[in-house]
Amino acid sequence: MATLIAPTKHSPVEDAETIYSACKGFGTDEKAIISILGHRTAQQRQQVIIAYQKLYHEDLVSCLDSELSGDFKKAVHQWIFEPADRDALLANEAIKKAVPDYHVIIEIACVRSPEELFAVRQAYQVRYKRSLEEDVAAHTTGDIRTLLVALVSAFRYAGDEINERLAESEAGILDDAIKDKTFNHEEVMRIICTRSKAQLKATFNRYRDEHHGTRITKNLKGEGNQGDDFAAALRTAMRCIKNSNKYFVKVVHNAMKGAITDEDSLTRVMVTRAEKDLKEIKELYYNRNSVSFDQAVANNTSGDYKDFLLTLSGKED
Amino acid sequence: MATLIAPTKHSPVEDAETIYSACKGFGTDEKAIISILGHRTAQQRQQVIIAYQKLYHEDLVSCLDSELSGDFKKAVHQWIFEPADRDALLANEAIKKAVPDYHVIIEIACVRSPEELFAVRQAYQVRYKRSLEEDVAAHTTGDIRTLLVALVSAFRYAGDEINERLAESEAGILDDAIKDKTFNHEEVMRIICTRSKAQLKATFNRYRDEHHGTRITKNLKGEGNQGDDFAAALRTAMRCIKNSNKYFVKVVHNAMKGAITDEDSLTRVMVTRAEKDLKEIKELYYNRNSVSFDQAVANNTSGDYKDFLLTLSGKED
Repeated sequence: MATLIAPTKHSPVEDAETIYSACKGFGTDEKAIISILGHRTAQQRQQVIIAYQKLYHEDLVSCLDSELSGDFKKAVHQWIFEPADRDALLANEAIKKAVPDYHVIIEIACVRSPEELFAVRQAYQVRYKRSLEEDVAAHTTGDIRTLLVALVSAFRYAGDEINERLAESEAGILDDAIKDKTFNHEEVMRIICTRSKAQLKATFNRYRDEHHGTRITKNLKGEGNQGDDFAAALRTAMRCIKNSNKYFVKVVHNAMKGAITDEDSLTRVMVTRAEKDLKEIKELYYNRNSVSFDQAVANNTSGDYKDFLLTLSGKED
Repeated sequence: MATLIAPTKHSPVEDAETIYSACKGFGTDEKAIISILGHRTAQQRQQVIIAYQKLYHEDLVSCLDSELSGDFKKAVHQWIFEPADRDALLANEAIKKAVPDYHVIIEIACVRSPEELFAVRQAYQVRYKRSLEEDVAAHTTGDIRTLLVALVSAFRYAGDEINERLAESEAGILDDAIKDKTFNHEEVMRIICTRSKAQLKATFNRYRDEHHGTRITKNLKGEGNQGDDFAAALRTAMRCIKNSNKYFVKVVHNAMKGAITDEDSLTRVMVTRAEKDLKEIKELYYNRNSVSFDQAVANNTSGDYKDFLLTLSGKED
């Protein structure tokens, strides 16, 4: 369930006017911006963007980019877009890094539904005049490239039907690859990149049953492979497919556990999940860490950025 | 342009009634079936299927399958479906063969527009409860698998913009691979499977300019590679992307040049192109072979099958 609190009715024109005043006055009124944008659904935000353009002949996104700063600015920038467009943006940022951030790309490819991923590919082309897989392929090499291109290009079957015999045989193939440490075997790629999520869950469960309850991602880790980019990428894909909430709890926990907070990861999870399942992620976070998620966010962030994240997380004004 | 001659108005109910009488009388009236179905657009044919179901509580496709026979039956069966659904059917048939018919799969992946290919992937899942790439991957191995899965999973950028510098550098990469006979190099895969068709055409043109007018598909052929499945698959992909009409002329020419006609290929080209660009394909066929396409079809086929193909090809009743 979503954590976002949004009114059923809102006036896009009034919203645009409030944001305009907040931006154009003496100093920026961040609180006003949060009180509007932090309480609007994706569709409502798009209406505000349109109203703003009509009223002031100016792009709301560029306006906010120039008025806000730091992590707050980044969070609002990501938040304001529709999900598919935002994912296109996140994927492009991840690809363009000196060392592409594989995990963000894998997260988008493996957490989103097949139809949602296709919408991301469409949005990517509108934005960048290139295909997502084209850019991923051009910025990566070797096994990682093969894996990432296949993951972002997948249009998995979305039905619930599973084939138990197939799960058994493919759990065996994965087992052999893990034992031989040939994670890059083409059969492993085929299974992880083309099977439906329901089928893969059955396969991972089968693996676990046959290994006295040990998860496949644990064995895939193995000794000496800690630093292996490819094994790490494969583990991320498996985690995203198996249980995305659990995966996101891990991401936000890692983002906040050290001395330095990883704001980019925290922002990404919160803006992409606030309208989806942040409620379940928060509950799972609490169960795992015995500290409330909002408390952890409050302890690790500050200022308008903190206020904005807590608003997305369901804090009443 | 299409060769199909279809009325702007038709009565789906009357069509269904005529076909019913043609099927249920003493002996089947194939001429009547051709005179209806050979003159209806994809949308009109779907309306006839619906009307038939409503009137007789029977599936028109199954009915025709049981009444017709041979190549005529196969052609009508393929023709009756909507394009994306038909492609899903053709791809599945190609995959299921003891040795998958790579060229059909490549043709569908590389000739259709990116949006059309995605519609095929959707239709495939509705029909078979699996993804197209999943089935392609499960029935192939090695480099061919990597190539085919990437081609069917592609969602290429469809814009016309090209990057000349990129065309130059990637023509160089292809040149090196051809010289080294390392066609399966991952860079070759990346270029052929992810770049837009407009960009690839620019790259192939660049290659040709730098090789005194010799086409890349000619050099890729090379000596000793004649029998190489992978090189042949790559050539088919390149031909489909470069100029699909020329490619289809080659397919139908090969289908009809020997002592034994390859009806499957001839049927496939005609049913998939009759509503698209069979007119241009016929013209190009004539320019290349100095014999009219319809004459060639008439010489190499017979009976109802011949009548049906010639009807699709624009013959007036």
